[in-house]
Amino acid sequence: MRIIYLDGQFIPENEASISVFDRGYLFADSVYEVVSVIGGKLVDYAGHMGRLERSLSEMSIARILTEAQWLEILRTLIARNDLNEGLIYLQVSRGNPGDRSFYWPGADTRPTILAFTQMMALLDNPASMAGLSVVTLPDLRWGRADIKTTQLLYASMMKMEAKAAGADDAWLVRDDRITEGTSQNAHIVNADGVLVSHQLDRKILHGITRAAMLSLAGGLNISFEERPFSLAEAKAAREAFVTSASTFVMPVTRINGAAIGDGTPGPVATALRQAYIDWAWDNAI
Amino acid sequence: MRIIYLDGQFIPENEASISVFDRGYLFADSVYEVVSVIGGKLVDYAGHMGRLERSLSEMSIARILTEAQWLEILRTLIARNDLNEGLIYLQVSRGNPGDRSFYWPGADTRPTILAFTQMMALLDNPASMAGLSVVTLPDLRWGRADIKTTQLLYASMMKMEAKAAGADDAWLVRDDRITEGTSQNAHIVNADGVLVSHQLDRKILHGITRAAMLSLAGGLNISFEERPFSLAEAKAAREAFVTSASTFVMPVTRINGAAIGDGTPGPVATALRQAYIDWAWDNAI
Repeated sequence: MRIIYLDGQFIPENEASISVFDRGYLFADSVYEVVSVIGGKLVDYAGHMGRLERSLSEMSIARILTEAQWLEILRTLIARNDLNEGLIYLQVSRGNPGDRSFYWPGADTRPTILAFTQMMALLDNPASMAGLSVVTLPDLRWGRADIKTTQLLYASMMKMEAKAAGADDAWLVRDDRITEGTSQNAHIVNADGVLVSHQLDRKILHGITRAAMLSLAGGLNISFEERPFSLAEAKAAREAFVTSASTFVMPVTRINGAAIGDGTPGPVATALRQAYIDWAWDNAI
Repeated sequence: MRIIYLDGQFIPENEASISVFDRGYLFADSVYEVVSVIGGKLVDYAGHMGRLERSLSEMSIARILTEAQWLEILRTLIARNDLNEGLIYLQVSRGNPGDRSFYWPGADTRPTILAFTQMMALLDNPASMAGLSVVTLPDLRWGRADIKTTQLLYASMMKMEAKAAGADDAWLVRDDRITEGTSQNAHIVNADGVLVSHQLDRKILHGITRAAMLSLAGGLNISFEERPFSLAEAKAAREAFVTSASTFVMPVTRINGAAIGDGTPGPVATALRQAYIDWAWDNAI
């Protein structure tokens, strides 16, 4: 049984419960991060902590743990659960004010802190050899997709709809442009060989793996543009891929049933996946 | 201390807790209703149960309680908490599958059922004499505002923003039209004396109090149109008002600081409020 962290305690997962009045339960009033772990170490920890801090700031949720305290908690979870490879999920809700009200409670309501591990094969992921198939679906999420909140119902619905359509996942379309995947940033290598990735704005999550990948692309002399792209451009692209903490860099080989390029993972996505994994090993703490 | 209902048990509110793996906590994967209580009886119970069923159906969450079972639970809560006037909140989440995954769990994961009371003065609400002041703010909610889910973060944010602006609440604007309030449907009586209310579509919650109010308007020979209206039309209106389970019919007397009509509750809103209260007394069960 997993040992998870909840509000200062390391406890068995089946004992980890929160009040029904927690605002995370009644209002989805909480933010989260997913950090990957390889070789028992945290990948891009600084990146995820920076984004957590931004999410808390955007939502005006108090920051009650220092980065050093977080690091100790996550390392303790890795040790207590013998986690070699997988994910750590961490969530901060605005806490339990004792009753339901739309208005945010005062400073006497302490945020609820949760973190737990999930074992998962990240490095030898068979999907990286075959590539993912995606279908495009409308992006009906709220207008602040840049904040990593637990308002994840639509992403969950679209993953179910993609599965029902026989695909691995969905890419979301707003105003005739692909914004991102349900839980990954979306990218293409267009017909001119340029890597195209939606710019950072309120329509997409500011991916930590995306940022590292673009930085590595620069080092590999892969030219890139940060702008939206259409489904037509994606279908005509040489390559497509996604990035996220759980998939690293993952080729996409089919969109709405049509093969991208020759229908196999392309050289740019393959090189970026390897570069990311090398970088992750070098920088995990 | 309140006695609340959770998963088959009536328990003190400070003992009511759910697993951190409940999908209501990790994904906002739950739906809810708020039913008003006057004289110890439930107002428009059939209306709220009908909408709950629709929400569960739209989200493919199993319906595990019959309407008769719900009624017994809510009546027990009223009795155990001596609730004469106020609200009952009820929530159904997709339940606790034991770990975090975007994909919906199988039928062996049982939905989590929660219900609790809140005492509140509904009939003699002083705001009904003064009227509410609202400010308009952008409607950035997801594209399925018709489903009553716990993805309420944006409504909560906009209530805080309205409060910071010195107003009582906010009306939300999408595509240059007012959709609804943060937690109420919005209506006007326009310059021609016609009641205008946004039509039922995916942009607004299908208000139970709104439906009853429009039915009563018909009986009072108040002509109405179901269509969107602009801020300009609202500012030029004779009257404005909102409807919800907790406010019944409530006049709005200021929009963005400007008086509506003569700045006091108008005759149509006042008549509809009284008609609604009369109807509620007659039909509460």
